[in-house]
Amino acid sequence: MATAGKVIKCKAAVAWEAGKPLSIEEVEVAPPQAMEVRVKILYTSLCHTDVYFWEAKGQTPVFPRIFGHEAGGIIESVGEGVTDVAPGDHVLPVFTGECKECPHSKSAESNMCDLLRINTDRGVMIGDGKSRFSINGKPIYHFVGTSTFSEYTVMHVGCVAKINPEAPLDKVCVLSCGISSGLGASINVAKPPKGSTVAIFGLGAVGLAAAEGARIAGASRIIGVDLNPSRFEEAKKFGCTEFVNPKDHNKPVQEVLADMTNGGVDRSVECTGNINAMIQAFECVHDGWGVAVLVGVPHKDAEFKTHPMNFLNERTLKGTFFGNFKPRTDLPNVVELYMKKELEVEKFITHSVPFSEINKAFDLMAKGEGIRCIIRMEH
Amino acid sequence: MATAGKVIKCKAAVAWEAGKPLSIEEVEVAPPQAMEVRVKILYTSLCHTDVYFWEAKGQTPVFPRIFGHEAGGIIESVGEGVTDVAPGDHVLPVFTGECKECPHSKSAESNMCDLLRINTDRGVMIGDGKSRFSINGKPIYHFVGTSTFSEYTVMHVGCVAKINPEAPLDKVCVLSCGISSGLGASINVAKPPKGSTVAIFGLGAVGLAAAEGARIAGASRIIGVDLNPSRFEEAKKFGCTEFVNPKDHNKPVQEVLADMTNGGVDRSVECTGNINAMIQAFECVHDGWGVAVLVGVPHKDAEFKTHPMNFLNERTLKGTFFGNFKPRTDLPNVVELYMKKELEVEKFITHSVPFSEINKAFDLMAKGEGIRCIIRMEH
Ligand SMILES: NC(=O)c1ccc[n+]([C@@H]2O[C@H](COP(=O)([O-])OP(=O)(O)OC[C@H]3O[C@@H](n4cnc5c(N)ncnc54)[C@H](O)[C@@H]3O)[C@@H](O)[C@H]2O)c1
Ligand SMILES: NC(=O)c1ccc[n+]([C@@H]2O[C@H](COP(=O)([O-])OP(=O)(O)OC[C@H]3O[C@@H](n4cnc5c(N)ncnc54)[C@H](O)[C@@H]3O)[C@@H](O)[C@H]2O)c1
Ligand SMILES: [Zn+2]
Ligand SMILES: [Zn+2]
Ligand SMILES: [Zn+2]
Ligand SMILES: [Zn+2]
Repeated sequence: MATAGKVIKCKAAVAWEAGKPLSIEEVEVAPPQAMEVRVKILYTSLCHTDVYFWEAKGQTPVFPRIFGHEAGGIIESVGEGVTDVAPGDHVLPVFTGECKECPHSKSAESNMCDLLRINTDRGVMIGDGKSRFSINGKPIYHFVGTSTFSEYTVMHVGCVAKINPEAPLDKVCVLSCGISSGLGASINVAKPPKGSTVAIFGLGAVGLAAAEGARIAGASRIIGVDLNPSRFEEAKKFGCTEFVNPKDHNKPVQEVLADMTNGGVDRSVECTGNINAMIQAFECVHDGWGVAVLVGVPHKDAEFKTHPMNFLNERTLKGTFFGNFKPRTDLPNVVELYMKKELEVEKFITHSVPFSEINKAFDLMAKGEGIRCIIRMEH
Repeated sequence: MATAGKVIKCKAAVAWEAGKPLSIEEVEVAPPQAMEVRVKILYTSLCHTDVYFWEAKGQTPVFPRIFGHEAGGIIESVGEGVTDVAPGDHVLPVFTGECKECPHSKSAESNMCDLLRINTDRGVMIGDGKSRFSINGKPIYHFVGTSTFSEYTVMHVGCVAKINPEAPLDKVCVLSCGISSGLGASINVAKPPKGSTVAIFGLGAVGLAAAEGARIAGASRIIGVDLNPSRFEEAKKFGCTEFVNPKDHNKPVQEVLADMTNGGVDRSVECTGNINAMIQAFECVHDGWGVAVLVGVPHKDAEFKTHPMNFLNERTLKGTFFGNFKPRTDLPNVVELYMKKELEVEKFITHSVPFSEINKAFDLMAKGEGIRCIIRMEH
């Protein structure tokens, strides 16, 4: 391509300060270095993790920064040593990478790559410790190795999954974070047996995807638990068969669920980030065989507390990042689930705005409206 | 048998008060009622659980009581409805039963029978709420449905495992509690892959059996962790290859283990009952794939505390009762492991006393000497 090896000037939504609206700026995007790729982003969407680090409450503030990690794009050019992808390939960026070399990448069980696992404090590229974004020569920091709120971005090759070029990027872009995280938490980690009962704590995008995963796995009762009853109507489309609002009861939700299920649910998936919900999600599973899975990202001072007897009574507690999917190996197959119509992604996409109106996506999320808002880079 | 249907007068070691030496008394043992069996005990051994409830510190005191639950014996007579065992059968009593009817008994994963799971507060038979032991018409209470510190005892049929009559009861009696609990925690629950690294917290009988289980499963490094360094020499016989005494280090044992193992052990099994060891055993497993298993019985006010991020980083925590063995279904196979010489039980048996000297077994345990002391009912 004509732009390969050159600096690209393009539009990016820059967060100058914590909690202040993003501003669309012209940025310079340096060419990809060794083992890096430069990607033209076509569609991106807003996830809570962007908002947490943009608000920077109880998180290390790194500004000015380009947020964004759920997206779909096309490789513009590649750096030295990159052989897995080539210009023109369709890719989904992922906040956690897969180097294919470390013990985690080689383990059948883990997707927590030693080199490329999520690092929310780092604002630079791993290779040389520098940013590829600048305005008037001053660096603008990266976010989780993706920074997709830019027309072009640079990523480590281990953080892009090459997908079927026929997959519509305006749909499958939402598979690059939250939806896959919830889906995988159910199908890869909780693994509800056919006919089992599953509780889903938190019915945001991640929890709804976990419900969808439980449905695909064959669970017959899927109990949605949320403090916000406005989530319940929507959740029916994602397989939830029953609902519990902890505020409607004057006993702990663990007991409410135990009463509904003859002693406890078979599986639970926590998708709130709230420590109380994490403890409840664990304590509500049936003794003898219950498995609880934590997905929500906790506050950094949170403490998980329970009586150890709850473990001794043969309950299992696990956690997962990105639904235990290995991004480069597995994400293309998740896209294929969509192509085969086994997984519906349209129902997760409730809004869409042009890039110039990206702050509207933040407003929608603040109001808790909808599930995912697609941001269109070209309009 | 001549005694069937009649009261048997025999010797039993009665605990009249918390923490006071047992006294050998003549007791009357009523005939077994529906779904019960009366068993002539030949050998029994002392386990920590007996001591905890005899000391009754932080436990509900139930006295006068006949303790004992690790034993081997022969069915003397059976009550109405008992078809699975007959007089003359060799059996191991088990503190947690298997009714074969409840959801737990029918689940492939659980051994926590709804009807017969351990209940340390109950001192009577389930059928009629009465004791089968008496002295001068006054009831002497049962312990965990077994009360094996008596020449004859009455149990629910669901609490006896019928074993190979050729198995020597003076050896296999120790399989009826601690040894199977530790062994099963490793082979059924932690399931260390071949070549993996396992940490065992606590090198008492249960921990040594867990080490033995890890060795049988094919672990190549087995790191014993104990505050008492006198356990280390003995532990070599049970497959431990390395030792850590947390007192020898001025950093947390989790970090010591992480340094020794490039980030954490693959599996850990906690066999101490100490809440700090439980937390350490969890936090020392490798992120991405580590599994920790709790076996120790915690203090009733203990609280398990950890940062939820430790779960999110793809660690798993489970607990187990009786090594997840179903007593009636699986214990006969554990005895066969011994018969096939795949499992050595002799090395767990370090002492032996006649029934009249049962208090010596308590003294040995108090001093932390040896592993198991066999109490011979006939001499
Ligand atoms: N582990 C991973 O790989 C991964 C990936 C993506 C997102 N996440 C995390 O998953 C969580 C959910 O993400 P999301 O985008 O769906 O968030 P969201 O805010 O859209 O949804 C969270 C839902 O939880 C509900 N909730 C909050 N506290 C609750 C409580 N105590 N009990 C019941 N319901 C409660 C809220 O009402 C809301 O509906 C976040 O913590 C996010 O950071 C984790
Ligand atoms: N889950 C079950 O089914 C089951 C069955 C039997 C026994 N148990 C429990 O297993 C535990 C072990 O039983 P045992 O008979 O082997 O006991 P034990 O007292 O013989 O052995 C415990 C060992 O742990 C060590 N220890 C104590 N605190 C420690 C710490 N903080 N760090 C490291 N080591 C520590 C002690 O020095 C001792 O060597 C007990 O809690 C017992 O009640 C559980
Ligand atoms: Zn890696
Ligand atoms: Zn996200
Ligand atoms: Zn049962
Ligand atoms: Zn025991």
